[in-house]
Amino acid sequence: MATQGQVITCKAAVAYVPNKPLVIEDVQVAPPQAGEVRIKILFTALCHTDAYTWSGKDPEGLFPCILGHEAAGIVESVGEGVTEVQPGDHVIPCYQAECRECKFCKSGKTNLCGKVRSATGVGVMMNDRKSRFSVNGKPIYHFMGTSTFSQYTVVHDVSVAKIDPKAPLEKVCLLGCGVPTGLGAVWNTAKVEPGSNVAIFGLGTVGLAVAEGAKTAGATRIIGIDIDSKKYETAKKFGVNEFVNPKDHQKPIQEVVVDLTDGGVDYSFECIGNVSVMRAALECCHKGWGTSVIVGVAASGQEISTRPFQLVTGRVWKGTAFGGFKSRTQVPWLVEKYMNKEIKVDEYITHNMTLGEINKAFDLLHEGTCLRCVLDTSK
Amino acid sequence: MATQGQVITCKAAVAYVPNKPLVIEDVQVAPPQAGEVRIKILFTALCHTDAYTWSGKDPEGLFPCILGHEAAGIVESVGEGVTEVQPGDHVIPCYQAECRECKFCKSGKTNLCGKVRSATGVGVMMNDRKSRFSVNGKPIYHFMGTSTFSQYTVVHDVSVAKIDPKAPLEKVCLLGCGVPTGLGAVWNTAKVEPGSNVAIFGLGTVGLAVAEGAKTAGATRIIGIDIDSKKYETAKKFGVNEFVNPKDHQKPIQEVVVDLTDGGVDYSFECIGNVSVMRAALECCHKGWGTSVIVGVAASGQEISTRPFQLVTGRVWKGTAFGGFKSRTQVPWLVEKYMNKEIKVDEYITHNMTLGEINKAFDLLHEGTCLRCVLDTSK
Repeated sequence: MATQGQVITCKAAVAYVPNKPLVIEDVQVAPPQAGEVRIKILFTALCHTDAYTWSGKDPEGLFPCILGHEAAGIVESVGEGVTEVQPGDHVIPCYQAECRECKFCKSGKTNLCGKVRSATGVGVMMNDRKSRFSVNGKPIYHFMGTSTFSQYTVVHDVSVAKIDPKAPLEKVCLLGCGVPTGLGAVWNTAKVEPGSNVAIFGLGTVGLAVAEGAKTAGATRIIGIDIDSKKYETAKKFGVNEFVNPKDHQKPIQEVVVDLTDGGVDYSFECIGNVSVMRAALECCHKGWGTSVIVGVAASGQEISTRPFQLVTGRVWKGTAFGGFKSRTQVPWLVEKYMNKEIKVDEYITHNMTLGEINKAFDLLHEGTCLRCVLDTSK
Repeated sequence: MATQGQVITCKAAVAYVPNKPLVIEDVQVAPPQAGEVRIKILFTALCHTDAYTWSGKDPEGLFPCILGHEAAGIVESVGEGVTEVQPGDHVIPCYQAECRECKFCKSGKTNLCGKVRSATGVGVMMNDRKSRFSVNGKPIYHFMGTSTFSQYTVVHDVSVAKIDPKAPLEKVCLLGCGVPTGLGAVWNTAKVEPGSNVAIFGLGTVGLAVAEGAKTAGATRIIGIDIDSKKYETAKKFGVNEFVNPKDHQKPIQEVVVDLTDGGVDYSFECIGNVSVMRAALECCHKGWGTSVIVGVAASGQEISTRPFQLVTGRVWKGTAFGGFKSRTQVPWLVEKYMNKEIKVDEYITHNMTLGEINKAFDLLHEGTCLRCVLDTSK
């Protein structure tokens, strides 16, 4: 490859300071070092976690940085010792790594690989604890080990899922975050059984993926809960078959759901990131066995609370990250499921724009009508 | 039987008002009505839940009442329609009923039978919503559906476990509450696997039963945590093989345990009823899979809290009541295990007294050296 071993100058959206428009810049992307992979990003979607860090509310957010973590692309070059992908492979960068060697990966109990976290958590690469991005010599931090709001990015090899080259990258980029998170919360974390009652708090992309997961798991009643009643129409297509708007009720929403379901639901999912809603989600579960899964990410410093009696009387409180999926192993499997029409992906994409329009795309994210906006990074 | 169908006058310890000495009184115990069983209580132990209600801190506590819920006795007579026990049967009254017919019993997911709760929760019997106890015509409330601080009590038939008549009642009375709660928290609720690391907060009877349960489940490291270091000697006999006194450390106890175990324990158990300790117990669990079980009962109105990140990164928060054991079915099985020397019971009994000495026995409960005090109710 002509670019291999060379610094690549390309366009990226740089977040210089919190809460100010991203700047489309020429950035320099250094070649991958040992154990690293440089990827040409073709499509990237926007997710609320990007917006959260951008807002400045994330105390671990580092600036300047290149955000983005839900994307797809093609390997441009690989560093020393990288054997599992090669230039030309179609890939999805994974913010949740999978090394298959650490205590976590070997436990058989979790997908939370710990191998590169000490570097990705502080915006650098493991090898030399430095960034591969710079603008005129000044380093720009990585974000979540992915930084996909760029035409090229460098990631650790344990963070790259190689996928079927026939898969449309402009669609399967969504399998980098939101859709797997929702499906996996149901399949891996809650393990919903046929005939179950399910309540879903928040009908954005993740909530809708939970609905689809619940439907495929055979849940009977799938109750969508959102303060925007317009969302019910779309949600029906994903499996939601009852809807409650908390604003239509005087009583706390947990009581409304308990009344509606003769004692509470078997499973509930919080897909917003609001600690009060997390409490409601737990408390609307059935005594004796109801399980609540926290899927949304709360703002820093916020805490969940409830009376311990809720747990002593049999409710279970859990959470999930990337839906419990082992990224390198299972993202390719999810791509296959999509190719076989076993899971939806296209239906979440409500908008298509270009990298150059990213600030407009972020504005859309806060509107109820937008699920996922996919950016073509070539423009 | 000479007493069948008659009111029995016998001795009982009556709690007239919160926090004042119990009064040994002649009480009248009415005959059992349909679906009820009158039991001659031979031995009863004291448990912290009795002390909690007696203290007046339990907002659902009703006075005057007859406390007590960990006991053994012999059926004196049965009401209409009672088929599963008959006069002369050796039994353990169970505060957690098991009707085998309700939604909860049939779920296969919980031991929390709901059949008689609406009555036992307010100190009366289901049949006529009245008490079977009185003193000079004035009713005395039942407690937890058991009221074992009396020479005779009346309970619902769904709350009676028939046991092997060869079992020593002065010992197996302990299988009515604390010991099963601890064992079941490990075996049924947490499902501890061989090789696990376990942390136990609070080394009273329940905590020691957790230790024994963990040992029999094959746990490798069983870390006892208590602010009274003297408890370690006794705890060793139950399986505890490491000890931490939070007072010996500057750091929060959850950090101490995380450091000690290279990332946290696989399972933790809170056996005190303190909401701050419940938080510590959750937070000392290993990222990715650690499960914390709340066994202790917190004071009314108190709440647990933590950062949702604790759950999103894979910890699970649960609770247990009566260790998840189905009372009528499994208490007899626990008695068999005791008879076969597969579980300890004798070792928890540190004191033996009489019903007449019950106030002294309550004083003992607050001393570190007392695990269980068994009262002979004949004296």
